Order: sequence, then structure tokens, then C-alpha cells
Amino acid sequence: MSESYTLAIDAMGGDHAPEMVVAGLALAAERHPAARFLLVGDEARLADLLRRHKRAAASCTIRHAPDKIGSDLKPTMALRMRGASMRVAIDAVASGEAAGVVSAGNTGALLALAKIVIKTLPGIDRPAMAAIGPSARGDVVMLDLGANVVCDTRNLVEFAVMGDVFARTVLGLTAPTIGLMNIGSEELKGDDRLRAAADVLRQSHLAPQFHGFVEGHDIAAGTTDVIVTDGFTGNVALKTAEGALKLVGGLLRQVFSSSWSARIGYLLARPGLDRLREWLDPRRYNGAVMLGLNGVVVKSHGGTDASGFAHAVDVAMDMVVHRFNDRMREGLARIVSLQGGLGPKGVIGPKDGPGSGNGDPRLAAAG
Amino acid sequence: MSESYTLAIDAMGGDHAPEMVVAGLALAAERHPAARFLLVGDEARLADLLRRHKRAAASCTIRHAPDKIGSDLKPTMALRMRGASMRVAIDAVASGEAAGVVSAGNTGALLALAKIVIKTLPGIDRPAMAAIGPSARGDVVMLDLGANVVCDTRNLVEFAVMGDVFARTVLGLTAPTIGLMNIGSEELKGDDRLRAAADVLRQSHLAPQFHGFVEGHDIAAGTTDVIVTDGFTGNVALKTAEGALKLVGGLLRQVFSSSWSARIGYLLARPGLDRLREWLDPRRYNGAVMLGLNGVVVKSHGGTDASGFAHAVDVAMDMVVHRFNDRMREGLARIVSLQGGLGPKGVIGPKDGPGSGNGDPRLAAAG
Repeated sequence: MSESYTLAIDAMGGDHAPEMVVAGLALAAERHPAARFLLVGDEARLADLLRRHKRAAASCTIRHAPDKIGSDLKPTMALRMRGASMRVAIDAVASGEAAGVVSAGNTGALLALAKIVIKTLPGIDRPAMAAIGPSARGDVVMLDLGANVVCDTRNLVEFAVMGDVFARTVLGLTAPTIGLMNIGSEELKGDDRLRAAADVLRQSHLAPQFHGFVEGHDIAAGTTDVIVTDGFTGNVALKTAEGALKLVGGLLRQVFSSSWSARIGYLLARPGLDRLREWLDPRRYNGAVMLGLNGVVVKSHGGTDASGFAHAVDVAMDMVVHRFNDRMREGLARIVSLQGGLGPKGVIGPKDGPGSGNGDPRLAAAG
Repeated sequence: MSESYTLAIDAMGGDHAPEMVVAGLALAAERHPAARFLLVGDEARLADLLRRHKRAAASCTIRHAPDKIGSDLKPTMALRMRGASMRVAIDAVASGEAAGVVSAGNTGALLALAKIVIKTLPGIDRPAMAAIGPSARGDVVMLDLGANVVCDTRNLVEFAVMGDVFARTVLGLTAPTIGLMNIGSEELKGDDRLRAAADVLRQSHLAPQFHGFVEGHDIAAGTTDVIVTDGFTGNVALKTAEGALKLVGGLLRQVFSSSWSARIGYLLARPGLDRLREWLDPRRYNGAVMLGLNGVVVKSHGGTDASGFAHAVDVAMDMVVHRFNDRMREGLARIVSLQGGLGPKGVIGPKDGPGSGNGDPRLAAAG
């Protein structure tokens, strides 16, 4: 079994861990026969759970970690817990023992630990969180979703490179289209930072795929395959869309239980309604990915169930099997050469980019 | 007829103007018998339309304006068009002839003209755009929706004051709850600017109503009656929610036409589904309001129909009848006294607020 197909699993992260995690691995093990899982957490509890999940047991190796990082713990405190399940799982990626890690634990802690222990890819200023969601024209990748509250031009350009590689790898697209989130599609809208990022992308190897500015409604419309934005905006947009879908779902349930004829109506339309519900099921889109690190890091929603956790494992496996990080390095090399071509004033350089935000109090990373 | 019940109407703004505007006024005139409309635009066309809309004609006075501001015209160019219907309508507010203006024309031009011609209320740094939307717990007010791409602490505090008064006036609430948009509800999330705004609100007369930080999903959940955010985030969130609702609406239409049994199911559930559709109908929420000006300024969606335009007129009338601007002055006076209490370091002062963003290239107003 190749080492590159091993995923470290934080067995103790998430609201319903470790039961949910092991049940999720049982599903994932069926779908990925070549995968090996390094299951990190309370050895006694995990051994007990694996006795009940034979299929998962065959793919798992337990590694004991006595501690658990709480969901409200500050990242700075989490960094000190060397015996935490999340930390031991991340250490396995840093040492090369595992190709990636999946955790449903504390997002801020996972991001901080991954940055410090696994480290960012050469040339990447700051990692970003990406996720896949549904749209009228197929799945859409959006990033950043909250790793960076404020982003400069360089960050946005790097997010476009990472989003491109992610969409190729996980969605299987050959030339994903890329949009830069703004509040109008006209050239004049937004701020200097956005306009500079658009200019760089138009001169880069991504130019044929770059669609220009997109707006909030373009997410659900699927105007582009990849949507690039800062972490504050991306986080708000993702949660706003989830909230709107949840509202409509709840209202539809009310409508279909409001009268006998509505109940019968539901039964008659049920096949299509069930397909729609499955298609919009948040579990199907579970697994936010931290891009730009020396390894695959996938964050499962903390409140998910076994099916959702298995989907997060799917995402990690897709990235590992399709050599995501090798492709990332290729994409970054092309952007770095562009930076060189732009000369000393290159807008994506680490020091001389406009709006690089040095000294900006808003640069603190989100937890 | 009191002068304060007169609204100036930009008859030429919007995709289907002036027909849509006059048809909308016919609906509005039924609902607001005391209202007078100063109908500004092409005199001959408007006179012709009023002959077909007798009810509107009884409430309207035509004022000729030969020009129309195009939907793509830059605000700087629009400022020069003194004969434009939008300009003449705004002039009527500045002169005191009308208490407010409603336009479905170019948003950037309307905002720029309103700021320069009508001017901001004393004590207001920058006007904001607000709108009402549906939530699980009743209507919600959100601002800013795009007038200010980047906002400082002072702006966010002023938006809270304006949102409070707007929710009292238009939603009829006695003590609307207020949330500040962030990417987590914990105190540590976000940036200094947001934390400072939260601190000021906790010390202000709004403290009992201030809920703290909210997240994207809180918009549809209706966690608070008012949601305060910067114009970039608010614009993206509004359009993201609209896009998500449109996607689900389209998918539901597909489901209900996908088979004969689904069609029959639709007919059986139809009363509830129709109520849901009406409740979520964007026309019911048409009318974004520019707050913080010396007069009522309502922007109708450019693509709306007569029913949507009539709703924008409803919003303007609510604000005029309930003396919105008098209440605004009261709210501002209370915040100004707080500012004095904070001494020379008062964070909402026009000069010494942290993150006031002077010199920040991202401060350009959105069109």
C-alpha cells in the first residue's frame, strides 16, 4: 500500500466524535479500497468502535493521542497541546507518514497548526480555505472562506491559482473559468486591490480562463467555476447562501404539511423533490479544504454526520490521488515567472504589491 | 395637501420607464390617497401615459426634463446633466418642494447626486443604502448595501443608528435588535474596526438592542431585525441570497414540471406554494433606501415592474409620513453626545477614529 494514499484522521474532532468519524470511515473505506487511515485519538475508545465497524477496521491503524482540542479553544492555546489528536494527525502529515489530514475539529486551531507544522508551499503568502457548492451550472469552487479576513492583491492572485488547480483536481475540469468577486461587473467597481488582481490575472497563464468580476448572484448562477474573494466576504457569502437555502427548505416543509391536499401533492412530486433535496444536501458539499500547504488538509463541518464526514474524506482522497500539490507547485511556478516578468514593480511581489496591507490592523487571521 | 407628502418621481429611470413608472404610480395612488407625485421626465410622453392612467393622473404634476441618465453612465458624468429627469427630481427635494424622491435609474448617479445636491444630515459621515428582506422571523433590514466599499468604525456605528430608526419607521418595531456582521459570533473574530464598533454600540443608547456579532446565516434566520455591515459585504450578501433563492425557485419549477404526477402534486400544494412565492417575491422587497441624507431617497430596482415600483413608493411614503428624518436627527444627537462623553479619543469622531481609512485606496464609493 503506497504511503501517499494514507490519510491521518483526527478521530476526536467534531460534535459527534469519535463515533461519527469511525462510521464515516466505514463508508469511505468502501469507496476508497486503496486508502489507509491513521486514526488518531483515544486508543481504547477507538479500538472499541473499530470492533463494531469491521470494514473501517481493515483500513485503519490507531495512534493514541490523549488530548482533544476544544471547539472554543483559542488557536494560540491549541498550538501548545502537543498530545492533542489534531496535532498528532497533523504531525503525521509533516513527517510524510500521511499525505493529508481530515478533521472535524476547531477550524482556527486546524488552520494555525497546519500553517506552523505542515507549513505553506514555497511562494504562497497565506493559505486559503476553499469549498465546493451547488450552482445552476454545476459545482462551483469558492475561496477564501475565512482563513484571511483581509487579503491583498497578491493573496487574491494566489487564490485564483489555487482555485484553478483545485477545480481541475476535484471537479475534473480541464480549463475552469475564474471570477473575482466584486459589487458590480464593470471595470470601475470595487477597489484598487481588486482592479490590480484583475490586471495581474489578465496577464497571467490564467488569462484565457479569467472571466473578470462577478457578483453575489453569480455564485448560485454558476457564472464561473471558481470564485475568488477575501476570507471575510467569502465566509459571509457562504453562510448567507446556506441560510437562504435552509430558510426555503423549512418553508417548503411547512407548505407540504399545511393541508391534506398539500401532503398528497408532496407525495406525487416526491421523486423530484427528493432529488432536489439530495442535490442541495449540505453533507454532499462537506469538506472545506485548506489550500497552499505542504500537504492536503480538509476541514469537515463540526456538526456533520458519518455521511458528511465520508464526503470530506472523498475530497481529501481526490486531492491525494490526483497529486494536487504537485499541480499546485506547477501553477505557482507559472505565476512566479509572471511576477519576474513584471519586473521590480511586479504587483504580486511579497513586498511591493499595492494594498499589501502591511501594518493594517485588519490582517489578523480568522479563527 | 401638505408639501411634506409630495414625492418627486424620476419617471425616466429603469428598464421599462416611463410606462412602468406611471403604472406603478397608479397602484401607489390607490394606497396613498394623500400623496402627491411630481412626475419628472419627457412631458409629452408622460402626459400621454397619464391619459391612460386616470387614477395616477389625479395625484401627479408633470415637470419636464429633457434628458435621461443612462444606466451605464459614470456618476461624474451624470453630475453634469442638469436637465436629466433624475437631477430635476433630486433638485425638488433639495429645494423643499418634495419630501423625497424615488428613482429606478442608475444607482451610482443617484447616490452621487443625492450626496451633492440633497447633502448628508449634520453629523453623518457617509450615507448608506439599506433594504428590507424576508427572514424566518419577519422582515430584516440590512445596510450598507454598496454605497461604501470600505467602512470605518464610525461609519458602522452610524449605520446602526440609521438602521435602528429605519426599522422603527418602516417595520414599526419599538426596539429593533441590531447585529454587526462578522465571520464568527465570538468576541475575538473579525478585525479591530468591527470590535471597536461593537464597543461603541455597547456604550451607546442602542446597547439594550445590540445583539453583538452575527454571521451570514443570521440574515435568513432573522436573528436580529437590523444587520449592519460594510457596503462590499452587504452587497455581496444580498446578491448571494437573491441568487440562492432564484436557483431554488428555478429548480422547483423544473421539479413540478418533470412528470404528470409532479404537475398534479403542484396543483394540490399550490395554495401554500403560491403564498411562499408571494412572500419571497423580490418585488415585495423592492426599494433600497439611501439613509443619512436631508431627504428621503429610494432606489427602485431597474428591472422591476409596476408592482415593484409601487412598493418602492410605499417605502418612501412610510418614511415621509413617519417623519423618518426627524427621528434620525434625534438618534444622531444621542450618538454625538456619546462621542462627547468619550472625550478627545472618541472612536466615532470624524478625525480620530481608528481605521478611519484616510488614504486607504479602497475608500472609493461604489457606483
